[in-house]
Formats: sequence, C-alpha cells, structure tokens
Amino acid sequence: MVSHQVPRWSAWIFRASPGWQRTACAPGASVGQQRWPRIPWQVSGPLAFRGCASTAPRVPRVMPTSERYPVQRLPFSVVSEEDLAAFERIIPGRVITDPEELEVANVDWLRTVRGCSKVLLRPRTTEEVSHILRHCHQRNLAVNPQGGNTGMVGGSVPVFDEIILSTALMNQVISFHDVSGILVCQAGCVLEELNHYVQERGFIMPLDLGAKGSCHIGGNVATNAGGLRFLRYGSLRGTVLGLEVVLADGTVLDCLTSLRKDNTGYDLKQLFIGSEGTLGVITAVSISCPPRPKAVNVAFLGCPGFAEVLQAFSTCKGTLGEILSAFEFMDAECMQLVGQHLHLARPVRESPFYILVETSGSSAEHDAEKLDGFLEQALGSGLVTDGTVGTDQSKAQSLWALRERITEALSHDGYVFKYDVSLPVERFYDLVSDLRARLGPRAKHVVGYGHLGDGNLHLNVTAEAFSTALLGALEPYVYTWTAAQRGSVSAEHGLGLRKKDVLGYSKPPTAVQLMWQLKALLDPRGLLNPYKTLPAHA
Amino acid sequence: MVSHQVPRWSAWIFRASPGWQRTACAPGASVGQQRWPRIPWQVSGPLAFRGCASTAPRVPRVMPTSERYPVQRLPFSVVSEEDLAAFERIIPGRVITDPEELEVANVDWLRTVRGCSKVLLRPRTTEEVSHILRHCHQRNLAVNPQGGNTGMVGGSVPVFDEIILSTALMNQVISFHDVSGILVCQAGCVLEELNHYVQERGFIMPLDLGAKGSCHIGGNVATNAGGLRFLRYGSLRGTVLGLEVVLADGTVLDCLTSLRKDNTGYDLKQLFIGSEGTLGVITAVSISCPPRPKAVNVAFLGCPGFAEVLQAFSTCKGTLGEILSAFEFMDAECMQLVGQHLHLARPVRESPFYILVETSGSSAEHDAEKLDGFLEQALGSGLVTDGTVGTDQSKAQSLWALRERITEALSHDGYVFKYDVSLPVERFYDLVSDLRARLGPRAKHVVGYGHLGDGNLHLNVTAEAFSTALLGALEPYVYTWTAAQRGSVSAEHGLGLRKKDVLGYSKPPTAVQLMWQLKALLDPRGLLNPYKTLPAHA
Repeated sequence: MVSHQVPRWSAWIFRASPGWQRTACAPGASVGQQRWPRIPWQVSGPLAFRGCASTAPRVPRVMPTSERYPVQRLPFSVVSEEDLAAFERIIPGRVITDPEELEVANVDWLRTVRGCSKVLLRPRTTEEVSHILRHCHQRNLAVNPQGGNTGMVGGSVPVFDEIILSTALMNQVISFHDVSGILVCQAGCVLEELNHYVQERGFIMPLDLGAKGSCHIGGNVATNAGGLRFLRYGSLRGTVLGLEVVLADGTVLDCLTSLRKDNTGYDLKQLFIGSEGTLGVITAVSISCPPRPKAVNVAFLGCPGFAEVLQAFSTCKGTLGEILSAFEFMDAECMQLVGQHLHLARPVRESPFYILVETSGSSAEHDAEKLDGFLEQALGSGLVTDGTVGTDQSKAQSLWALRERITEALSHDGYVFKYDVSLPVERFYDLVSDLRARLGPRAKHVVGYGHLGDGNLHLNVTAEAFSTALLGALEPYVYTWTAAQRGSVSAEHGLGLRKKDVLGYSKPPTAVQLMWQLKALLDPRGLLNPYKTLPAHA
Repeated sequence: MVSHQVPRWSAWIFRASPGWQRTACAPGASVGQQRWPRIPWQVSGPLAFRGCASTAPRVPRVMPTSERYPVQRLPFSVVSEEDLAAFERIIPGRVITDPEELEVANVDWLRTVRGCSKVLLRPRTTEEVSHILRHCHQRNLAVNPQGGNTGMVGGSVPVFDEIILSTALMNQVISFHDVSGILVCQAGCVLEELNHYVQERGFIMPLDLGAKGSCHIGGNVATNAGGLRFLRYGSLRGTVLGLEVVLADGTVLDCLTSLRKDNTGYDLKQLFIGSEGTLGVITAVSISCPPRPKAVNVAFLGCPGFAEVLQAFSTCKGTLGEILSAFEFMDAECMQLVGQHLHLARPVRESPFYILVETSGSSAEHDAEKLDGFLEQALGSGLVTDGTVGTDQSKAQSLWALRERITEALSHDGYVFKYDVSLPVERFYDLVSDLRARLGPRAKHVVGYGHLGDGNLHLNVTAEAFSTALLGALEPYVYTWTAAQRGSVSAEHGLGLRKKDVLGYSKPPTAVQLMWQLKALLDPRGLLNPYKTLPAHA
C-alpha cells in the first residue's frame, strides 16, 4: 500500500491543545511516541495468524462444519482409487492425500469451519484444470476451488469431502504492459507479490487488503474483494479487464482480453466476479493497474465523537480531493485490543474514535500542502484532537498496521462473531452502540471499524467461546437492523457458507431465483463449491 | 464536462518557436485567434444534428433496414386493434400511432437504418412498463426499448414492426444523497440534465459524451457508454451501483441498491449493463457521482507526428498524475472537416495531429503548476509544437467542441462508415494509415480520432453515398486487422444491428454460445430488441 515517497517531513506529531507542534526528523526514525514498535509488514498476513493459532496449545480443534451447521451432504460421488489414479495422470506428483497437508486446506484461517476432504489437487495450467473438471463432471464429484484460503465466511474450504482444487501452483505472470499498466497473470499469484512486481515497473495493484501476503488474485476476483484502496481505485468490476475461466464441465471460457474498453456483447466475466467459485474456476486474470503514486502520506488522528468522524470525512473530501486514497476508522475498543493482544502502542492520545487518512499523489509538495490544509481545518474546528502523520514508508506502515491488524487482535480475544455490512454513513455507528447495549456483559467486546469512506462497517463481537445463545442474540438482529436501513448484509466478505442464508435480507426473491437459474445454467450438476453462496432453499 | 473553475489565467496561448508566450485576459474573452467562434454547447447534441438533417432538402430518405440488410422478420405477432386498446388502458393518452412522430422514432440519428413500427408507447412508471411487457409476452409481440435514440450501431430503432417502448417520460430523479453523491433516477433522464442537477449539488456525472443533450441514462447503461470521462472515472460497471429492470415477461427485478459495496450474491445488474435492451428493460439507475472538480483546464495542442502524440501521453500521465481527466486526439483531416462543415476555426497552427488534454482537480494553483510542468516538458522536447489553454468555461467548451463535434462534421460530409475499435496504443494509428492507402480515391476522407487514453480509436470513412463496393473494401479488412492485434471490434458503441455479426472477431465461440444461453434464460421468446447484439447464427 505504501510506495515510493518524496518526504517533506519524514514524520511529525501534533496535539490540538495547547497548540500543535511538528517534529521533523530523519527518514525512518521513530518520533514522539517512544513505545512505537517497528512492525514487520508481512506479519499481518493470515499465514502469520494461522501460524500463531496452530502453535498456541490452548486453541481447540475446530468442530466439523457438518456438526455445527445444519447442512446435509448432497449425493455427489465419493473419490475412488480410480479417480486418484486419473488425477495422478493429469497432474503427476501433485495429488495430495497427506492428512497434515489436508488439515491446513480443510480449515479456514478464522478456525470456524472444517471440511473433511481427502484429496487436494495442485494444477499448474488451465489445461490441467480443464481436464480435472471434465473428469469430476463425468464422475459427479464436487469441487472446492481454493486460493489463499483467507476468506471470512467459510467459502474457501470444503464442507464435506469435496475435492480441493488449489491455485497455489498457478502463480505465473503472463504479461505486463509497461505503458498501460495492464497485468495478465495466473489466478494463483499472491496479491502482495503482484504488488511488488508492478511496483518495480512504476504501478501498483488497484486493490490492497490485510490478507495480501497470502491471498491469491483469483480468489480476490472470485470474492470481489474490496479492501483498502477501494475508495480511490474502485471496484474490481471496473479494474478487472478480462478473465479466463474453466466451467463446471471443463470448457475453457477465454475472456482474457487486455483492453480498457470492449463492448462486444455481454460482459461474461462479470458473472464470475464475486460468484465465489460457484459458477466456474478462474484460472487467469487481466487487470488494470494504476500508476504508482510519487508521494504517500498517512495521518492517524483521534476524534472526540462519531459525529466528528463524519464531519472530518466531509472536510477531508473537500480539501484533499483527488489525492484522498483511504479513510478508515476504528473505535477505542479496537485500539485497546490491538494494544492488549499485539502490543502495538497507541500513537496518539486516547480518544473515543480514531481515523486513518491516506493521500496518494504525484507531487509531494502539493500533497503536503493539501494535507496541511485539511489538518489545520480539522484541528481548528475540533473535529480532530490529536494526531500523527507518517510520510516515510516505515512510519506509514506502522500506522496502517494499527488498522490492518485489528482482525488479528480480535482472533486472539476469543471466538469472533464477524459482521461486514454496508450502511448509510449517518447510521454507521448506531448499530455498534445498539448492539453493545443489547448484549451487555454477554460479549467480551463489541467493536466497530472499517472503510468509512465506502460506507462499509466491520462489526465484531468477541466471546470466550462459540455460543448458540449469543448467536441468537446477534442474529437475525444485526441483519434486520441492516435491512431496515436498506443496507447490505455482506459489503465485501461475500456469502460463502456462513452468510448464504441471510441473502434474503438484502436481495428480493426474484433476484435469488435468478441467481439459482444462473447456477443451473452454468453448473447444472451443482458440482462447484456446493453449499455456498446460494441459500439452501430456492 | 466543464464545471466551476478558479482561473489562474483565463486563457493563454503559446508557440513552440521562436519562443512561446502566454496572454492573460479577462475570463470569458477570446484570445489570440480572432476567428475563434462562440459555440452554443447544446448544438453538439444529436437532436441538433437530426434537426439539421431533416430540414436539409438534399438528404435522401433512409432505406428500410430490411431492404439494405439480409434480415428476416421472426414470427412474432402483429399489433392488433385489441393490443392498442390494451395499451391505452395501461397508459391512457400515451399510445402514439401518428406517422410523423413514429418517423423520428423509426430512424436512427445517423440515418443509416429504418424500422416500420406502427406504435410507440410512452410509460411513466416501472409498473406501466411491467404491464406492457407482460401483455407483449402473452401476445408474443416484439419490443424495441428506446432511450434518446443516439446509438451508433442501429440498436435503438426497430428493424421491422417491433413496438417502440420509449423511456422519454420516465425522467424523474428519485433521490440524491448530498454527502455520498449517489443519484437514483428513472431511466429516461437526459444525461446533460442530470449533470446540471448534480452539479448544482457539488458533484458531476461520472460519464460525458457528445450526445449528452439527448441520450438517456438508461440507454447509457444499456449500451455501457464510455465517452469522455472514462479515463478518470472508469467504466459504468464500477460507477453504476444498482438497477431496476423489467424482464421480458413483465417481472420487476429490483437491484436498485445505493451502496458502494454489496457482495450479497451474484451481481445481477451487470447482466443488463451493455446488453443493449436484449435481456431486460432498465427502468431506474443508481449511480455514484464524483465530486465536482474545483478547477478544470483544457489544453489543445498540435503534435508533429503520431509518435509524439504517444510520447506526449506518457509525459502527461507522469506529470499530471491524478488530475488528468481526458486525453483525446484527432488527426489533421478531422480538423479540416470541422472547419469545412461547421466553420469552427483551428485554434492553433496546422499540425498533422492534435491532442486535447483536460485536467480536473481540487486546487487551481496546484493544477496550473502541474499543467505548466507538462507543457514546458512537452514543448521543450518537441512533442508539441503549438497550443492554447482554456481555463475559463467558455474557452474550455470551445476547445472541447472541436473534438466533440467531429461526428457531426462527418455526417455533413456524406455517407459515413463508422468503426470504433480498441487497439494497443503502439498500433493505434496504423489502421488509419493502412486504410487510407488501401482505399485511395474511393473514399472522400479516412479519419482517425478518439479516446487515446483508453486505447479507443474512432475510425471513420466518408463517401458520397453508401456503396457495397466500398463496404467490401472496408469489411472484413478492418475487423481482421483489429482481431490480429487482439483488439476489440466495438470498444464503446456496442453491437446493435450493424455490428452483431462481427462479434466473432473479438469473442470465441464458447463466449458467443454462453451469450445465447443467457438470452434464452432471460428472454426465452426472444421478444426484447430482436435482431440485435447476438449474431444471426448461434
């Protein structure tokens, strides 16, 4: 997320009262806050979390999905020795049946769902994927496509014994155009590695998310990932230019164009963006990358109330204009958890709310002037009471870590009930306050954070352990509350296994019916990622 | 396109040699070029062209489509007196059978195709559209949805006697959110009127095109219109947040959400964006509008060659960064036609190529500094030899008119063979040069212009009249040439009637087959906009 910079001050810190000061210092040095830690960036990836979780002795074994959720196995065939032999012929040496390797692929990184697949396949090419799916189609074998397994809704692991089709070895860049910034690559490329690749060539990936160190671009597209750059670069529906997809019967659908504009008929690739592997397996992606900004600044600010957060956002849009690239918020409880579980220090004085504002632009001088203008206005009018700005990469990354690692901090706090909703910004935080009052001491923590600039709230509730009673207090309350505001019950995480039955809170029956018709058209035997995305009853 | 400005210089003009000067002047005054005309902005809309064409006595009657093209009427029912009575009950007083009114709706504005519909319906509400389509579905009557009738490929008028379903009276704004800039409106709102509406509230529409004075937002979405702001604000696939659509059987599909993020299941609205009314009738649109820029500058520059145009584009991206909002180009023949037919004066010295660069930003001072930087670099290195900059609205509009009114100038030059292709920018102009050599004196003019920043070339060939011999020299030559570069044979105009059979140059058979399957799913009787978009033989 943070790229080449031309620092004006490497970092400075200020206070609203009695008067704010800046402290210039050498690039890379930490200032002001002595407790500020230096965080290795990659630690924030899900692989790191998963590592932590599996080595911690107190972590209990994840209950099989079929025991926790009311789901019945559909009458697919069971993988036989003959099937394994057939797969071995298609991808020699890449048919995995080792239980330890399967354990990692059967459990989601949040440790909430567990499948019991007996085989993991690692194709390298589209042709291999096509052969595998053709075989599965003939044999009526269900398939769970898997990227980096970083999904939030149980969509990336099997529910029963579905074959796991991993894109991990499909990790080659196919082409990159130095002038247009158009990247074509296989689906299994890791987002962070792609970002490094295009950064070296003067561009950045149009999306960024906490899981970047593990997630695959194919999985990002299949789940229509939003993330931290959405505010500036928009949806994957605009930035993805082409896809190559293998359909359920093994047919290869080549829509892998690299054109910014192409109005030749229906835009078929859109069917697969956000369909969570239920309509086809994405094998390659063509994506438009924006130029790498010459200057990046990150401001981390304390706000006295949520009304001030909203007003700061309006001020921010007015003063920063086209260089605003992120506007994130977190509440005081988030900061407390990040400090408690990850030992990250609060870089500003304690406040009820914190915001992170990022600018990305082509002129360090102009950007700094704009940011100064915003900060002066925000401080002068009391919207912000305290803050720090990072203009060098290390400081900026440290500030981002406070926001990005909230998910990780939560996972250390106990069982996490996760909600990811879109709401009108005026009502954005009311849901958190309402829920805190409703649950009282039954919850350890009720926290709110997220992409305020996109109207996307991450609402999380932690408890010592999973409890159906607490679940009953949360659901359908959260969904009816959201539906009453005409919000979305899944802003960016998708539906997967755990949210599919709440689809009706955001989509009318006609739309759900059309979804089922599309599923029947593209995957009539229902082999691809079964039990996911579509509600159980049509 | 041009909004509130904070002028630094209202306009200035320069020459590369012997030395360039700036001339500051009062806002609104014309400078430097005495012949510079003041153009009423709205004149450039297609209604104006159409007006011109119909009053000009030399314009011949447009040949019926069924005589010019090898197309057979499908076995739909014929509208009966009972049908008219039924429509009259649904939309009293808005069932049009007057031949003069039908004449306008039966012929496209380019005057290349003509239907023979006997009835035009003007519903005001979604419910009325639903009732009409339910009736047509029961009676097996074909329907041609029509917005502003500004399409370029014969998609907006009937081929035979299809019922014309006009969105002209569905022109109400439903809601606008002053903070988020999200507009919800009926499909028949005129783009330019919407732009005025949101401009007054501090925003702009994310798209702009020459036909803005006539085109409807529903038609823009149905054809996935690109246009002049695509470079900055991207595709409608990203900016359209929700749609309401009436399906072929009259079912209303409500996907009219107003959320920046919504990952609840398949994104059904995408099916209808760009499907040219063949899968459903769009009745309402929810769209995200960007903030109105505080400063807009337009530079019109002469370039000595196409290599310099490309290099100027690279320089432009590097120096203007996030404020670049348009990079358009036109060749010398375009300028000649605009002068000859519309009496618009060339604002700079004669050059082989011209580029129009627009910046839109939040700080007049910063933007002017960035633009100065670009111009100094471009002039210093000989990429640009002459230019003028408009920082006030009137001058900026005059400069834009040179580019926007090329289509109109061409229509005065005779019969126009129009091509709209996406190509890799390196080969962008070669197609024009190749074709000029190939056609020799058989063509009056072969011109190239378009959205270079998006890789989108408008290639136009004019002749005294339509000629199958000339058509034979053009096609499939243009399409095979484009396909050899892996380009798109329709970058933004769509397929409509006239391009549907060339789909195969840009899409593989698997994709065409899937298009037909989607058509069969959503419109099994093939009633909606028949003879369009899908190639004649599956």
